[in-house]
Amino acid sequence: MRAAIFRNGEIVVDEMPEPKPGAGQVLVKSLACGICGSDLHARKHAHRMVELAKHFPSRKPMNLSRDVVFGHEFCCEVLDYGPDTTGKFKPGTKVCSLPALLTPEGPQGIGYSNDNVGAYAERMLLSEALLLEVPNGLAAEHAALTEPLAVGVHAVAKANIKGGEVPLVIGCGPVGLAVIAALKIRGLHPIVAADYSPARRALAEKLGADIVVDPARSQPYATWAEHAQMSPEEKAARPPLQALLPALKAALIFECVGVPGLIQQVFEGAPRDARIVVVGVCMETDRAEPMLGILKELNVQYVLGYTPEEFAYSLRLIAEGQVDAASMVTASVGIDGVAKAFADLANPEAHTKIIVEPWR
Amino acid sequence: MRAAIFRNGEIVVDEMPEPKPGAGQVLVKSLACGICGSDLHARKHAHRMVELAKHFPSRKPMNLSRDVVFGHEFCCEVLDYGPDTTGKFKPGTKVCSLPALLTPEGPQGIGYSNDNVGAYAERMLLSEALLLEVPNGLAAEHAALTEPLAVGVHAVAKANIKGGEVPLVIGCGPVGLAVIAALKIRGLHPIVAADYSPARRALAEKLGADIVVDPARSQPYATWAEHAQMSPEEKAARPPLQALLPALKAALIFECVGVPGLIQQVFEGAPRDARIVVVGVCMETDRAEPMLGILKELNVQYVLGYTPEEFAYSLRLIAEGQVDAASMVTASVGIDGVAKAFADLANPEAHTKIIVEPWR
Repeated sequence: MRAAIFRNGEIVVDEMPEPKPGAGQVLVKSLACGICGSDLHARKHAHRMVELAKHFPSRKPMNLSRDVVFGHEFCCEVLDYGPDTTGKFKPGTKVCSLPALLTPEGPQGIGYSNDNVGAYAERMLLSEALLLEVPNGLAAEHAALTEPLAVGVHAVAKANIKGGEVPLVIGCGPVGLAVIAALKIRGLHPIVAADYSPARRALAEKLGADIVVDPARSQPYATWAEHAQMSPEEKAARPPLQALLPALKAALIFECVGVPGLIQQVFEGAPRDARIVVVGVCMETDRAEPMLGILKELNVQYVLGYTPEEFAYSLRLIAEGQVDAASMVTASVGIDGVAKAFADLANPEAHTKIIVEPWR
Repeated sequence: MRAAIFRNGEIVVDEMPEPKPGAGQVLVKSLACGICGSDLHARKHAHRMVELAKHFPSRKPMNLSRDVVFGHEFCCEVLDYGPDTTGKFKPGTKVCSLPALLTPEGPQGIGYSNDNVGAYAERMLLSEALLLEVPNGLAAEHAALTEPLAVGVHAVAKANIKGGEVPLVIGCGPVGLAVIAALKIRGLHPIVAADYSPARRALAEKLGADIVVDPARSQPYATWAEHAQMSPEEKAARPPLQALLPALKAALIFECVGVPGLIQQVFEGAPRDARIVVVGVCMETDRAEPMLGILKELNVQYVLGYTPEEFAYSLRLIAEGQVDAASMVTASVGIDGVAKAFADLANPEAHTKIIVEPWR
């Protein structure tokens, strides 16, 4: 079969052996797979990824001298079943799955592995136990957005929302947009979102942002503060010494960019007692002034991934039309277009989410 | 009057004008004042402190070309009252206070200010409204430990304890010891504490640590894990996918050292989902791998100071003998001994808390 392969630091197209389903596994056809920011990171920082894996003895790191097929935001079609399966969904059924494969050695990731090809290949293996049927005749390219939406749903769940917070989303790429969509579902308003790109600010509004800010024109934290003023009742209810502080509602800041220096920027802009959820994935060493965190008593929650329940919930949100995931898709390519798509995604004005359709 | 003065980066002894109580203020005699790690930091990093103050327009930064008198962990004796006071406590009464002075321009800090001398001077000003009478005939040198204990009480309060966590305290200087004492009061066990100094490990045990670790001999996180194993019932109650993770209770790590690189060390050692409370004050720029925080979904709560209620509670804890604060005091000096005491505190084996008694 054909695949877009990560080999020697580049994405190349080549033939590779057909995968054979083991016990409990299903052979599927990759219908649609989003290109994730993590894939771009991984291409650039693969050695860092391998190095960081040393902290997690249970995870098998990639061997970069061997081929890897990325692709973990997928929707597939059931083709054939391996041994010890029940044939839960008949061939032709559209399915989604967490990007994990249950093997005799335990669960392993799909997409950053030498053993388990991701969905930038024509065919791949999934575990029957993890399959979710795509409901409501939802298109494969929209069902493939389940995984990135789940990242936002999880980030919002980990934010420990008590009610009354005013959220600020820094960065409106796919991760920031997923956070905005998840915040809208939670009913937390107003949602303030910042991005330099007009196209992404427009998308942010489409997905639920109430106020969008261009950081080149106005300071996101100042705009946030304008919309986070306490009501007269809230002001009156504060203890005497707190009455000396600015009368602002609780800040909930989502860092959805993931480049070095960003957390420091958030530390500088954040108001006292802010909770910061770090959803952007920064693979490089970062520098920050801990004193700013200390003086403002900030809380930083790093998040990653999602639970199986959050993943299934995200698929339902898209299928029921509660999240307009389709608006995020700005292009689709075949296997031969993956390398160029990686380059094109560097321009935030041109693209948000590019979908790979390996059967094209 | 005489004072140990921070001048041109050094501690010098000199005469200075007598303070005169303004409206609502009280003239007090400084009976006892602890030397705080922040004072050592401030002497070394005073320019950084001024620079960081730019983020807080409401705080008046120190002018380093003028004199500053440190000293914010104090117990004093009432001498005389200024105008607009009620004379709440008669002269001779022993009192403690938050290190803050209420002025017509709003509350200002005591101890890192050109205007408000701290307690390394013979006399100083306090606000009548903030005075707390020292109860139970508690000695001044022990009442002076209210402030550092309040730092620990506050850190534990901000840790958002749900019950069932196993705490690990990194660093058993005064801050770490205060955290241990506050954890003991909260009844969270076992308390694991790590420090290279045998003297400080012994103090940690005295104040409530159940297990102490010498990081030169064994890895604190491994020792923590030995004592944080889930019970068979807790293991059985986990959802299926979580059953694949190590069966450890929730980790609550207090970083009480405050030097660059420490947070990165905690990130490396911490188990998944750990909550980290940063109590140690690191005034320098720090470097860390955000990816470790992300992969482990760590939560970092930076803390500073305490509330007025936590401060009053800490004084009661000491006065009622619930916290053996006296064991922390390893020496006391007069005004002439402050400069040498700053140098001596560099040796953790020799000293924990040195008390300044300006009347000696």
